[in-house]
Amino acid sequence: MKRIWIRKFGKSEILSIEQNKNIQKNIIGPKEVKIDVYFSGINFADIIMRLGFYKDAPKKPFVPGYEFSGVIKEIGSEVKTLKVGDKVYAGSLFGGYSSEIIIPSWMAIKLSNSMSLKEGAAIPVAFITSYAAIFDMARVRKGDRVLIDCATGGVGIIMLQMLKAIGANTIGLTSSNIKKELIQSYGAEALTHDEFWSNKNIKNFDFILNSQGGSSIRKHYDRLAYTGRIICLGISSGIKSGKRDYIAIAKAALTMPKFNIISMFDKNRGVYALNALKLMEDTNYAKENIKKFEKIKDLKLKPHIGKIFNYREVSNAHRYIEERKGSGKILLSWKD
Amino acid sequence: MKRIWIRKFGKSEILSIEQNKNIQKNIIGPKEVKIDVYFSGINFADIIMRLGFYKDAPKKPFVPGYEFSGVIKEIGSEVKTLKVGDKVYAGSLFGGYSSEIIIPSWMAIKLSNSMSLKEGAAIPVAFITSYAAIFDMARVRKGDRVLIDCATGGVGIIMLQMLKAIGANTIGLTSSNIKKELIQSYGAEALTHDEFWSNKNIKNFDFILNSQGGSSIRKHYDRLAYTGRIICLGISSGIKSGKRDYIAIAKAALTMPKFNIISMFDKNRGVYALNALKLMEDTNYAKENIKKFEKIKDLKLKPHIGKIFNYREVSNAHRYIEERKGSGKILLSWKD
Repeated sequence: MKRIWIRKFGKSEILSIEQNKNIQKNIIGPKEVKIDVYFSGINFADIIMRLGFYKDAPKKPFVPGYEFSGVIKEIGSEVKTLKVGDKVYAGSLFGGYSSEIIIPSWMAIKLSNSMSLKEGAAIPVAFITSYAAIFDMARVRKGDRVLIDCATGGVGIIMLQMLKAIGANTIGLTSSNIKKELIQSYGAEALTHDEFWSNKNIKNFDFILNSQGGSSIRKHYDRLAYTGRIICLGISSGIKSGKRDYIAIAKAALTMPKFNIISMFDKNRGVYALNALKLMEDTNYAKENIKKFEKIKDLKLKPHIGKIFNYREVSNAHRYIEERKGSGKILLSWKD
Repeated sequence: MKRIWIRKFGKSEILSIEQNKNIQKNIIGPKEVKIDVYFSGINFADIIMRLGFYKDAPKKPFVPGYEFSGVIKEIGSEVKTLKVGDKVYAGSLFGGYSSEIIIPSWMAIKLSNSMSLKEGAAIPVAFITSYAAIFDMARVRKGDRVLIDCATGGVGIIMLQMLKAIGANTIGLTSSNIKKELIQSYGAEALTHDEFWSNKNIKNFDFILNSQGGSSIRKHYDRLAYTGRIICLGISSGIKSGKRDYIAIAKAALTMPKFNIISMFDKNRGVYALNALKLMEDTNYAKENIKKFEKIKDLKLKPHIGKIFNYREVSNAHRYIEERKGSGKILLSWKD
């Protein structure tokens, strides 16, 4: 069994690979399943917690990772809905950077025929986040004018697909011209961040998804239409090339706005903040919401896998995300 | 022609009735209509501006009033869709406490056969506010768990009716036990404010409408479900029995919360503020949204007229609202 640990905070090199043959002897509970993991998803939050800026991370040392896919190698005595050999994927609260994982059986979702193991590892965080934002919070409707500020990321691409299924009029933002084509392939209009900020007439959005945080939140809020809403998803602007840069994170944190209800009265708009981790920490909520994964087929969701790194290359994988080189989902592979 | 002016700020007695025969000679523009007003609606905002606490009110002296109904007595040369004798109602930006009003013809809405002149004067503010809150901002869906904190007021009752049409599970709050039956008659559960606050298990709302303002906003926010939203509508808790009470209003204003995005991340909820006046100040928005009044029939909306005061009794009418004696809509009548 192999796991990747965060034992201290810092640059991507601190990620520590462990091999441990004893843990395989762990006995699983009657309602649990043991999964031979093929792929683990990497998320931007993993990088923030590696840098030590994620307040809800476990105490060091810990194994990060929110999502993975694999094959069931053992089931508990009371498990009826899954069997050994089933291909499954799951979200988890940390621990996902691991070649073998034991989880409660209700958390494991069977792969449909149309979904690969790679795609399975790429879907949980993107799906839970995007579904909560688009369907449960913003409740986007056909014809809505929508802006997604992280349109080429793992979450952003699933959002573009959901918005296309709904029939929204979406603009996707990206850092560079070469990624525009990817956005357009999902039926959305593509702009670079620079193009968006420099044209003040691009406004009147019913829904804006903000992942940059900091001062961009207020500026996006000002571009909403009456009765529109912004959902804040993170603080990606605080992370500069994977350094433990207190100045960048402090700047992003200090420029996160406070919304005064009295001033909001003149604006007729709404503000949400979304942390999907907190949603899934609530077992009742998680059990209720896991059913929503059945909608993946109807919504025609298909994760875009940007790049797969062998688990030994995990430091390179983190750096690749930090440098905003890729698009779509970045995975770790546990099989050579 | 008769009008009611706010010439100075203070108790309800300061409302000043004017009779002026000259204004009748005013010439209307080619796209305007002149209305012989039968009824004018009174809103809580009128009281706040009479007290001098409404920052968007015109400079003194001014005629308050946001809504009225009556019969067209003259039409401009280019008006094709309305004729003399038509029964109409309209929202207006101030000036509604008047026995005769000239407005652009697009603002006048014909009364349907099923609606009386009284009901017409009671609908504009309640409809615009409720529609923006329930359909455009919160986007309430069938089965949503909803709390309306002003359920027996003019706006609240229209909201209960809309929520019933949608199929929401609504709890309406009221100040006294005797008003509960009114709430129940619209298919909602009824609780007093005291019953609600003393039972902390009444929570997990998808949508809460807050009209009290002040510290109640944060407490309501804490009773939302994940992905739920609160809409702040006012600051009624700042007005105590119609006195120009700086302490009460200051307390309400100072306890209006600021929502810090960073703390909101843990909550997974949303906050809106709604000022329907600001919506209607935008002529493009108003023109677009006036079409929505056609939905009154489908939604089975019928204003509940709580009490009608002759215009000479306008001070008593204000006091009646301030003392929270009534329920539903309070109107002024211009006909003896």
